[in-house]
Amino acid sequence: MSSLIHPVILCGGGGTRLWPRSRQQAPKPFLRLLGERTLFQQTLDRVSDRSVFAAPIVVAGVAHIPLIVEQAAGQDIAIIAEPMGKNTAPAIALAAHRMPAGEVMLVCPSDHYIGDTAAFVGAAQSARQLALDGRLVSFGITPNAPETGYGYIKRGVSLPEGYEIERFVEKPDLETAQQFLAEGGYSWNGGIFAFASDRYLSELAQHRPDMAAKVQAAVSDGASDGITFTPEEASFATIDGDSIDYAVMEATTSAAVVPVSMGWSDIGNWQALRDAREGQSSGPHELVDCVDVMVLSDGPRVSAVGLEDVIIVVDGDEVLVTSGAGAQKVGKLTGASGR
Amino acid sequence: MSSLIHPVILCGGGGTRLWPRSRQQAPKPFLRLLGERTLFQQTLDRVSDRSVFAAPIVVAGVAHIPLIVEQAAGQDIAIIAEPMGKNTAPAIALAAHRMPAGEVMLVCPSDHYIGDTAAFVGAAQSARQLALDGRLVSFGITPNAPETGYGYIKRGVSLPEGYEIERFVEKPDLETAQQFLAEGGYSWNGGIFAFASDRYLSELAQHRPDMAAKVQAAVSDGASDGITFTPEEASFATIDGDSIDYAVMEATTSAAVVPVSMGWSDIGNWQALRDAREGQSSGPHELVDCVDVMVLSDGPRVSAVGLEDVIIVVDGDEVLVTSGAGAQKVGKLTGASGR
Repeated sequence: MSSLIHPVILCGGGGTRLWPRSRQQAPKPFLRLLGERTLFQQTLDRVSDRSVFAAPIVVAGVAHIPLIVEQAAGQDIAIIAEPMGKNTAPAIALAAHRMPAGEVMLVCPSDHYIGDTAAFVGAAQSARQLALDGRLVSFGITPNAPETGYGYIKRGVSLPEGYEIERFVEKPDLETAQQFLAEGGYSWNGGIFAFASDRYLSELAQHRPDMAAKVQAAVSDGASDGITFTPEEASFATIDGDSIDYAVMEATTSAAVVPVSMGWSDIGNWQALRDAREGQSSGPHELVDCVDVMVLSDGPRVSAVGLEDVIIVVDGDEVLVTSGAGAQKVGKLTGASGR
Repeated sequence: MSSLIHPVILCGGGGTRLWPRSRQQAPKPFLRLLGERTLFQQTLDRVSDRSVFAAPIVVAGVAHIPLIVEQAAGQDIAIIAEPMGKNTAPAIALAAHRMPAGEVMLVCPSDHYIGDTAAFVGAAQSARQLALDGRLVSFGITPNAPETGYGYIKRGVSLPEGYEIERFVEKPDLETAQQFLAEGGYSWNGGIFAFASDRYLSELAQHRPDMAAKVQAAVSDGASDGITFTPEEASFATIDGDSIDYAVMEATTSAAVVPVSMGWSDIGNWQALRDAREGQSSGPHELVDCVDVMVLSDGPRVSAVGLEDVIIVVDGDEVLVTSGAGAQKVGKLTGASGR
């Protein structure tokens, strides 16, 4: 057992709410949405201290392997190529099978933004301690607004380096979210997890035995070319997919939370990206009498006059113009659904 | 002297406030802004009844003659090609010289919209009667809002078929405009005029002798190819240009007004066009949770979410997004100034 933390970077998910920038061919993790590095590259950068983290395992759909190889150029990574998406619980199980028992995994989405890397690494080290004590750990993001788009985690009994989890709360309504913030002791569930690989697999076997068995079979019959491991497709295809939250975290009696404030955003829509970018436009543009207007153009000049709270995105042959609140509905547009 | 009215269609003016659709190469009169016919073509159509109107004379800059020939295809028109723009007073004088004394001219801008052609023709016939009595006639558009972007005309003594003009009023402030509407007896100055050709020339000679002499010289030394007449450039170039309003209408003691309500709009900016189009979008678009949003796209799909009172125009490599009120400032954008 090494003392290093093994990052497992999940590259699934489409991100249609960032359409038209995010498309099937170029999903959200692989876009330069903030700065010169893509969100996936920033995720790699965040775990690049080899005195703390082992070389990461990247789990992604086969279609995106070329993007991953290109964007991770020169870095030491292992890749697991999913024949199809089955949500997070099986993806993490694949990674758990590909490392020795007892090693601590740190599961990271590849499409989030984290401003404070030091805080992230500190939380990872706390989570590692809890994982070594047999805990299944969720990062609990300190909320700064009564968001209704996230799940919440209620802290329970204090532990060294964190807390037990009293309960998970589904996305609340606004009133409930406001109550949570006033009351304290609640965090957002940011989708970042840590646990020992064998603990995860045994919990999965306990709560989702069918899923666990099928992942095991797909791994046994899988193939590796030295860098990329591909599970056997037929077994994997029959899995009834589910999230780690439902399949394991809400089922286990060993859940723990490490609260952390690290400038986190899931960049779940254009309004969230505007916040994370602090409203900074890019591409040719001119704004006159505009307040809270962000322009992102990949070519054409965008001229805006007399607007308030508007986001304008030009990408190829698609133009999106949305209010901040409207950003929630972008994923439902005809264009975002690929038509 | 014929009993027909001679339309004189003025095609000057750039219309930068309809940028990016209106550009130097394709100015406002020559665009399909409303319906299948361009504003210039609609102007021709409006005077196409040859029992009322003679074949029109079109006055335009040399650069736009090919557009005019193309758009007037198959119609009987005469063309006067101005070597450079000198505002409306000299342009109208050129046309006056090209027809016999005593003929009634009807001066029409080529970039306005008129919904009710019958009302227009009726007003033209009233104006003709007044012109035959030696009057210089302005169409007075019945105002339907306290617009601050137009000049106003105050009616004076009643005449058969119209009124004397008591006074011209420069673009008023809002309070004054509201007062005008409450008081009654005011019309907008729509830039449509009628008079006998020799009356116009004699008034111009009286009030702007230098301009009149230079136009006369440019006409004397001009050249015609049978369809297009080109005044001599050197004389025309030295003219100190001015509008018919300042040079003649506000100076003469014979001004008259024919009030008319004919669904008129000068389509002076995108908001005015949205009104004239009754908000109808064109080009590929999808609107979700939008109120008073108009999209005009020449190709790319425009998707809009959660907007109110916004106009979106996509034209080639330019994207304009403006509020209704912001439309007033479009002409001042970097792009509109040709940079």
